Amino acid sequence: MTAPEITTTRVGIVGGGPAGLMLSHLLALRGIDSVVVDHRERADIERTARAGILEADSVRMLSETGVSQRVLTEGDRHHGTCLAFGGEVHRIDFQELAGASVWLYPQTEVFADLADARAAAGADVRFGVRDTTVHDVTTTRPAIRFTGADGRAHEIRCRYLVGADGSHSLCRHQIPASEVRQYRKEYPYAWFGILCEAPKSAPELIYNHSDRGFALISQRTETTQRMYFQCDPDTDVDDWSGDRIWTELQARVGANGHELVEGPIIDRSVLRFRSNVVEPMRHGAMVLAGDAAHTVPPTGAKGLNLALADAAVLAEVLERALATKDDDVLDEYTRRALDRVWRSQHFSYWMTAMLHRGPGADEFDLRRQVAELRSVVRSTAGATYLAEAYTGWPAR
Amino acid sequence: MTAPEITTTRVGIVGGGPAGLMLSHLLALRGIDSVVVDHRERADIERTARAGILEADSVRMLSETGVSQRVLTEGDRHHGTCLAFGGEVHRIDFQELAGASVWLYPQTEVFADLADARAAAGADVRFGVRDTTVHDVTTTRPAIRFTGADGRAHEIRCRYLVGADGSHSLCRHQIPASEVRQYRKEYPYAWFGILCEAPKSAPELIYNHSDRGFALISQRTETTQRMYFQCDPDTDVDDWSGDRIWTELQARVGANGHELVEGPIIDRSVLRFRSNVVEPMRHGAMVLAGDAAHTVPPTGAKGLNLALADAAVLAEVLERALATKDDDVLDEYTRRALDRVWRSQHFSYWMTAMLHRGPGADEFDLRRQVAELRSVVRSTAGATYLAEAYTGWPAR
Repeated sequence: MTAPEITTTRVGIVGGGPAGLMLSHLLALRGIDSVVVDHRERADIERTARAGILEADSVRMLSETGVSQRVLTEGDRHHGTCLAFGGEVHRIDFQELAGASVWLYPQTEVFADLADARAAAGADVRFGVRDTTVHDVTTTRPAIRFTGADGRAHEIRCRYLVGADGSHSLCRHQIPASEVRQYRKEYPYAWFGILCEAPKSAPELIYNHSDRGFALISQRTETTQRMYFQCDPDTDVDDWSGDRIWTELQARVGANGHELVEGPIIDRSVLRFRSNVVEPMRHGAMVLAGDAAHTVPPTGAKGLNLALADAAVLAEVLERALATKDDDVLDEYTRRALDRVWRSQHFSYWMTAMLHRGPGADEFDLRRQVAELRSVVRSTAGATYLAEAYTGWPAR
Repeated sequence: MTAPEITTTRVGIVGGGPAGLMLSHLLALRGIDSVVVDHRERADIERTARAGILEADSVRMLSETGVSQRVLTEGDRHHGTCLAFGGEVHRIDFQELAGASVWLYPQTEVFADLADARAAAGADVRFGVRDTTVHDVTTTRPAIRFTGADGRAHEIRCRYLVGADGSHSLCRHQIPASEVRQYRKEYPYAWFGILCEAPKSAPELIYNHSDRGFALISQRTETTQRMYFQCDPDTDVDDWSGDRIWTELQARVGANGHELVEGPIIDRSVLRFRSNVVEPMRHGAMVLAGDAAHTVPPTGAKGLNLALADAAVLAEVLERALATKDDDVLDEYTRRALDRVWRSQHFSYWMTAMLHRGPGADEFDLRRQVAELRSVVRSTAGATYLAEAYTGWPAR
């Protein structure tokens, strides 16, 4: 066995999704070098449809730190969103209520922008690596070992190691169970998501409550749309023909006066609802970021935004840790990041509970939900509370 | 069998609690005569401890329509309330956020004020009647029959009949099941309530979240206090000694830095949480008001306030129905009253769900609750949304 090729850097990052690449980008702006490795090929990541709503601060992070202006030119700025229930549609005007907007800009585009920006800056980002392992994470010299796309053994030696390697994070699994608390939740909800070739059915997202269950009208491009409807978590996509899907979607949004423009369905999948939070987000010289540390249900679109918010706090804290040579500075990251994570867990739960038909829900529950939705939209304070959360809380 | 003694009036009211007496009072102000009957003795009603928080509009209804000024002189005006959670206490300033206050003034005092005011006005209010039945409610001449406190048979003939006879309403049971929808909910929550002889432990109510379950610090007078703690709905009060009660209460409020002033416990009871809504609130010439039409869980103190709000809408609608001789005007009562009823159902549910430990709750749930409470108090909009609901929505 030949000795690995060794690269030395200050921050080694496992995971080249938005959290890892944004962190690498923000560190570079602070003059801190990093190496990113990911077992996936770049093309695979770009093909995986994910979230599509960016908070105002996420958009600023992309545009103002020089990743790309594309979100501003090609993304779709949404000044509000609609809540449809009880036969009516009510708009929440984000701009008027919270002075902020959100942007419809798919996660795949965020990833492409970040990957392009990192490549253009000559950053060391290695996709398609195999057999990744992390070592010595509680020392001052942690390492990442892997087989590179070149087939050779590599080792990244770093001062700090970041696990930004998604919900199945191998980095997280390195932490002994006794050193970490893990909070998990499985919800009795799931979304049946489709991509279809059709013009937009609405200019902004519509969160649709109905006796048949939740439905979400959303958009992707001028010619491709994303729709979701609440389904049983054990649903098999193969049981759903295009006709059946459209009938169900039309019934749900039709209850509140909408009609969808139909078109060929080019992708269908079931998203199960899960929550996960790891505390602390640090173990020795290793920290976790994004989905590796926390996952939220999709309602309210917080997942990607949390990952980017983690990167922002982490870049700042890592710079300070490197400057002071004091690892305990990293604990500040856990404290600041978790505050947002738990509030996002609640916001995602709230949007889910308010809009979805729970298992065993009866007429009382449905009417109570409609009364809540009515209370929220009828009160400037209630609508503002929702708008603030949706567009993103300020950094702390 | 001797013929009953017949009294003719425009509005016959079954139930002499706050809803029935307030309605009788408001009708009198509009020049409309009514007769109120109740199977309970006045002294029994005055001895039954119930809710203690009045919304701003409820206080205005008592003071500005001439029932009594006592709520203003002897009631305790609360400009805010406290939410205690996660080791901290946060005050919600009602006056600052919603421009309104609430008053601590026990339901028994509201009842006494109303009963005194009606007696002083020479109103026909008959307590301690027996064998009450209602008749011909779908005709234009409904009747109430009963045995009076004098032991004689009586009949009240009226144009409209109001069932304000509480959650076990005999009037409601007259409506055929096919003519009405009833929405019910049993919750897995209950309160263990005590009255104790002690000085106040806090100047305002404190809603206390803890891992051990909810606790509410409230007041009654300078020397008598009301406290509650969440318990299993099947709790037997006899299983709880004074020591055990104080230990549990102190543990729950102590988690957030409070300590209660203890004293002899003079009353203990278990309140089960139930919701009930009847739709419509009208059947022919009969309408339902207060607990006869709807009950809410106690968290948020909406029950008494809903009863008084019903009376306000009903007085207006009955006057119009009598003037126009059009019974269908009564449907407006259902529409207007139910809007508030359902919002109150949600508010009571929300306060309950946010503050109580649910059955099977785990660490994730507790942390999510704390995150919600933090989101509410940290956001002016969130705190205002709560303050608006707590102090009472405007009449519609």
